[in-house]
Amino acid sequence: MRATTIHAPFDMRVEEVPDPVVQEPTDVVVRVLRACICGSDLWAYRGESARQPGQRIGHEFLGVVEETGSEVRGFKAGDLVVAPFVWSDGTCEYCAEGLQTSCPRGGFWGSVGSDGGQGEAVRVPFGDGTLVKLPSGAASDDRLLTALLALSDVMGTGHHAALGAGVRPGSTVAVVGDGAVGLCGVLAARRLGAERIIALGRHTARTDIARAFGATDVVAERGEAAEAAVRELTGGQGAHGVIEAVGTEQSMRTAVNITRDGGSIGYVGVPHGSGTGLDLSVMFDRNIALRGGVAPVRAYIPELLADVLDGTIDPSPVFDLTVDLDGVPGGYKAMDERTALKVLVTP
Amino acid sequence: MRATTIHAPFDMRVEEVPDPVVQEPTDVVVRVLRACICGSDLWAYRGESARQPGQRIGHEFLGVVEETGSEVRGFKAGDLVVAPFVWSDGTCEYCAEGLQTSCPRGGFWGSVGSDGGQGEAVRVPFGDGTLVKLPSGAASDDRLLTALLALSDVMGTGHHAALGAGVRPGSTVAVVGDGAVGLCGVLAARRLGAERIIALGRHTARTDIARAFGATDVVAERGEAAEAAVRELTGGQGAHGVIEAVGTEQSMRTAVNITRDGGSIGYVGVPHGSGTGLDLSVMFDRNIALRGGVAPVRAYIPELLADVLDGTIDPSPVFDLTVDLDGVPGGYKAMDERTALKVLVTP
Repeated sequence: MRATTIHAPFDMRVEEVPDPVVQEPTDVVVRVLRACICGSDLWAYRGESARQPGQRIGHEFLGVVEETGSEVRGFKAGDLVVAPFVWSDGTCEYCAEGLQTSCPRGGFWGSVGSDGGQGEAVRVPFGDGTLVKLPSGAASDDRLLTALLALSDVMGTGHHAALGAGVRPGSTVAVVGDGAVGLCGVLAARRLGAERIIALGRHTARTDIARAFGATDVVAERGEAAEAAVRELTGGQGAHGVIEAVGTEQSMRTAVNITRDGGSIGYVGVPHGSGTGLDLSVMFDRNIALRGGVAPVRAYIPELLADVLDGTIDPSPVFDLTVDLDGVPGGYKAMDERTALKVLVTP
Repeated sequence: MRATTIHAPFDMRVEEVPDPVVQEPTDVVVRVLRACICGSDLWAYRGESARQPGQRIGHEFLGVVEETGSEVRGFKAGDLVVAPFVWSDGTCEYCAEGLQTSCPRGGFWGSVGSDGGQGEAVRVPFGDGTLVKLPSGAASDDRLLTALLALSDVMGTGHHAALGAGVRPGSTVAVVGDGAVGLCGVLAARRLGAERIIALGRHTARTDIARAFGATDVVAERGEAAEAAVRELTGGQGAHGVIEAVGTEQSMRTAVNITRDGGSIGYVGVPHGSGTGLDLSVMFDRNIALRGGVAPVRAYIPELLADVLDGTIDPSPVFDLTVDLDGVPGGYKAMDERTALKVLVTP
C-alpha cells in the first residue's frame, strides 16, 4: 500500500510500504477513508520533534474494517470505525477510568514499527479497546464523515481543554489559540453551556469559524494588549476558564494572565519552548488551577459522536483544504505556512 | 500595647506600639489570647521576603472582642473569635464565592499600616466579613483553644491542599512537607476519607504526629529515593493526590513525580526558588493537574470548627513550643533551626 513517511525536516514522502496484516489476535486492519494533518504533526515536520528517517506519520483517521484478529469481538469486516489518536487495550485500570492515554499497552500511531493515519490502511492494535463504531450510513455522507473525523483528535481535545478549564453553564471562557483545537475548544465550551466565549485570534477566516462555533467576542490583539482586552471584556477580572491550545511559553503566560482568580486553565497545547511560561507566584496568589494534558479522546468519542450525529455540534468547518495522498506533502507546507487551517486527506 | 516587629533579617523585637482603636465603622478590636508563628513568617525572618523596618508580623490569632465599630452587626465586646490569615469584606463577589483571599478590599495582617497577630491586640478591618465566633466556653479550655488557633491558617491551608489534591474517600494521598501545614494536610486528607496517606519526612517527632493524624505510611528518603519509595508503595503508579506544602523547586518536582497519571497536586507551599520545578511535558503526558494557592481559610472555618468542637479533628499537636510575647524572637530562632515545629504565643 502507499503511506506518508517522514525522512527529515520538511521531507515528507508518499511511498510504497508493506500492507498491514493482522499480527496479534486483537488486531484490526482498517482501510482509511479519511485522515488529516494535525498541528502537532508540524513539530515533526519542522524538526522540533525527532523522527527516524522513513517513520510513518498521521494519528487521525476513520475507515472501514478490512480484517479482524481471532480475539476481536466488537468489529467485523465492513464496519465503519473511527480511531482516537492513541491506541489502548480497553481493559486496564486507566482505560476503565477513561484515561486511555495512560494505558501501559497503549501507543501512538506513527511511532516506530506502527502504521500512521496518513496512508491507505492501518494495523490497529487492541481493536476492541481502541476503535469506535460509526453508523454505516455515514460513509455516503461526505460532510458527516468529515465531521466524524474530528472525533479522532481535535474535537475530543477541545472537549478535554473545556473540561480542564472547568466550563459550566454560565461560564465565561477565553480561548488562546485559533488552530483547529482552539476552535473545537470554542465549540466544546458552547456545548458545555458557556455563556460568554472570548476567542483570541486575528485571522478572519479562523475567527469567523470561532464565531460560527459560538464565540461571543473576538480579541485580535496580541500579548499584553490581548490580556488587557480580555480583562476589559470581563469587568477587569478575567475569564472563569481559559483554554490553552498552543503550547508555547508565551501562550501559557497569556492564559495565566487572563484567568479570573479561582479559575482554571485547561491546557492541551503540546508544551514546547524553553520554559513553562507559568508564573507560579501569580497562580498561587490568585488560586489559578492548571489542568489538562494529552486528551483521552477515546473516552469522549461516545458522547461527542452522539452530538455530531444529531447535529448538535459540527466540527467539520475546521477542515479547509482537501488533498489526496499525493497531496499530503503539499498539505504540510500549507499548514506550516498557515495558508490552510487543517488539511483533510482522502487516500 | 506591646507587639512583635521586624527590623531586619533575624532582628525581631517586642516593642511598645500604639493601642489599636476602631478607625472605620466596620472595624473590630480584638485582644489576642493565642497567636503563633508560621513557617511562612520565616521567609521574612530570613530576609527572603522584604519587610520595612518596624513592620508588624504574625497572621494567626484568636482572642476576645474589645470594641466594635458602629456598623458591626455580628460581634460584641466579650465575644471569643478567630481570625483567618487575611481580612476580607465579606460582601464582594469573591467573598460570596468563598475565595476571600481575592477580596479587593482584603489584606494581610502585618502589611504596612496594619497590626500583626503576634501582639497584644489587633484592629480587624471588616470584622463582620473576617472574624468567626467561637463558643465562649472554649476560652477556659487550653487544649481546645490551641486547636482552634490552627483554624486561622494551618488547618484551613491543609484542607485547601487536600481539596486541590482531589482527595476523595478511598484515595491514596502523598504529602510533601512535614511542617505544620503538611501535617494538617494529613489530617485533612483523613477527614476527607483518604484510605492511604503517605507522609514524606524523616524527623521522628514530626512523622509521629503524621501517624497520629492518619498517615498510614512514612517515607524517610529524600529526592529520587523518596519518589521510588512512593511508587513502590503505590504499585508503581504514584498517589491519586499529592499535597505540596513546601514551595521549593525541589518539592514541586517531587510532587510531580509521585503523582499518579490523571491525579492532582494540591499546592499550598508559598512558591520560592528560581524556577517552578514543574516539568510541563511530564505533567502533560500524564494529565497531572495543579490546583491550590493561598488558602481561603475564612471559607473553611465553619465546617472545620464544627469538627474541632466535636472532636473529629484535633490539630493542636502541631504546636510543640509555647512562648509569651517576650519569647517570640526566640520562637523564630527555634523554628528557623527546626528545633520547634510550630510556636504558640500567649501574649
